[in-house]
Amino acid sequence: MRSDVQLCLEQLGITYPIIQAPMAGGATTPELVAAVSNAGGLGSLGAGYLSAAAIQTAIQAIRARSQRPFAVNLFIPATYHVEKTQMQQACLDLQQCAETFGHAVRAVKPPYAPDFAEQMAVVVAEKVPVFSFTFGLLDPYWVEQLKKQGTILLGTATTRAEAEALADTGVDMVVLQGAEAGGHRGSFLAREEDSLVSLSTLLLECQCLGLPMIAAGALMHGHDIADKLKLGAVAVQMGTAFLSCSEFGIAETYKAALLSQEQDNTTLTRVFSGKLARGIHNRFIERMRTCQSAILDYPVQNSLTQPLRLAAKKAGNTDYQSLWAGQGVAFSRAMTAAQLMARLVDEMRQ
Amino acid sequence: MRSDVQLCLEQLGITYPIIQAPMAGGATTPELVAAVSNAGGLGSLGAGYLSAAAIQTAIQAIRARSQRPFAVNLFIPATYHVEKTQMQQACLDLQQCAETFGHAVRAVKPPYAPDFAEQMAVVVAEKVPVFSFTFGLLDPYWVEQLKKQGTILLGTATTRAEAEALADTGVDMVVLQGAEAGGHRGSFLAREEDSLVSLSTLLLECQCLGLPMIAAGALMHGHDIADKLKLGAVAVQMGTAFLSCSEFGIAETYKAALLSQEQDNTTLTRVFSGKLARGIHNRFIERMRTCQSAILDYPVQNSLTQPLRLAAKKAGNTDYQSLWAGQGVAFSRAMTAAQLMARLVDEMRQ
Repeated sequence: MRSDVQLCLEQLGITYPIIQAPMAGGATTPELVAAVSNAGGLGSLGAGYLSAAAIQTAIQAIRARSQRPFAVNLFIPATYHVEKTQMQQACLDLQQCAETFGHAVRAVKPPYAPDFAEQMAVVVAEKVPVFSFTFGLLDPYWVEQLKKQGTILLGTATTRAEAEALADTGVDMVVLQGAEAGGHRGSFLAREEDSLVSLSTLLLECQCLGLPMIAAGALMHGHDIADKLKLGAVAVQMGTAFLSCSEFGIAETYKAALLSQEQDNTTLTRVFSGKLARGIHNRFIERMRTCQSAILDYPVQNSLTQPLRLAAKKAGNTDYQSLWAGQGVAFSRAMTAAQLMARLVDEMRQ
Repeated sequence: MRSDVQLCLEQLGITYPIIQAPMAGGATTPELVAAVSNAGGLGSLGAGYLSAAAIQTAIQAIRARSQRPFAVNLFIPATYHVEKTQMQQACLDLQQCAETFGHAVRAVKPPYAPDFAEQMAVVVAEKVPVFSFTFGLLDPYWVEQLKKQGTILLGTATTRAEAEALADTGVDMVVLQGAEAGGHRGSFLAREEDSLVSLSTLLLECQCLGLPMIAAGALMHGHDIADKLKLGAVAVQMGTAFLSCSEFGIAETYKAALLSQEQDNTTLTRVFSGKLARGIHNRFIERMRTCQSAILDYPVQNSLTQPLRLAAKKAGNTDYQSLWAGQGVAFSRAMTAAQLMARLVDEMRQ
């Protein structure tokens, strides 16, 4: 194995260069995170939408199931602006698009997201082995707190400029999110639409930075991992590949949708959260687009559409859920996380 | 060499699995096309915007310089609609965005593009070795005419569904255009924004169709070619890599812009032609976006902005030219086409 890959494995304390991507909103259950880590990869808790208390509970649940290292991921807070009239218009538009589902839309109030400093305080107090973050740069105060106690820091970049900015703040490794990736775009320097660089190109562009690169975006099989290591990555981060695992805390209808795709039917949209994200095209995206509905800033839009998405999930309705997925979704496989890890390692070696 | 790659080389009558991508508007000079073909690749004349007479002249000029096979590429005509008031608004908006350049915008009248049947008649009469097309399916009448005389047919797809549709019409091979590719998107079944599949994923999705695949999108080095052949492609089509070749008929300022990129500064825009295309971000794109300028259907918008683009090219101004480029633009190299071909073949074998 290449020495830089070996070094990365040692730093992270894992056996295989495979990180399960964090997905927020309770989808990355402690069972999933522990299963991936126990199988020799790095499980990640997507804690962006969790309260500080919920994060603490989840970390304890992971530790009860695994002695291995794991990661916790948080979202760097965004600035946003919402006028009362904008909220009213967005409610009216959303109501119009959701009416066939019979859901009553209500205006939302702050806080639109959990308090970041409170979340960070738990991450520091719990001395998590690896901390990854998305949507920006981490304040030097927190960098220092985490480094002091030996937490490994992973930032997320979608362009070379973002990777350079992260390097300057002292992260240990950078997750390079290719345009293929599912879920929210991690862009923070330029418009998200201008930061859609394909993974291979992004790896080639960032090779010279000297920062260990973790490749993310539409990686589904072991040979995809081998390909990206060949382009200089020290590890990969895979989201969609793990989404159809039995331990993943998403609706069964969502899993069924993932497993039934025959080609890339994903699209990039802001309708669910106000921030550009990739998911399977569905009726809600289509209606919001056709009606040219008003979309509020992230995370306000996210807070506004949350009740609708939860109701749809409960009703087993995929028309109004956010079906986040990467471009490789047609290669989804239904199995346990441990089975998937074994399969990936096997394919990687072929 | 793999037997399907060998078969593709024999069918196309070339030595190396490298096709120089067609670029319309006179950029692919007969000198360039002949140089690529003489070096063992397949040169392509981008004839989409050329009149039937100009196509004939160019084909004769290529044949005067090379005995080797070459390709001619045309655009399948699009339906469009433009109201008088829309034209007026688009002119006003364009004028506002172009004012710092001091260009006077004038409304345009049909025809907005050369007659397709006349173009096709020349392609048939000249018995071109390879005919490639973009933006749709070729009418069965023309398919029959070309097949009768042994012309090899290459269609362009951006999704698996489009590749299947092309297979049904009897094309010999399909050019799979990944989201990374520069210039116009070849999408014709779904919205262009919903057809931005990364090249690797697209190759994996289309492997099962049994149609020989030509990979296109951000391929700049020989190792990129080897990678795509490994994913099942029988050949590659490269555009941006050849753009900085000395024989390419684009402005020197455009070439300088290509060679000065340090990362992927491309974006997808409709402002130049009305059809989504990838190019280096510049002032015109920014101004049209900021002003939320009206954009007419393709090819009307293309016809409307043409005088501005030509004036900018003449003045050595890159702010108002369309600087088409793929995501690999930071890896551009200045050399002759023969030198680039030799370098690519050498790198492919490493």
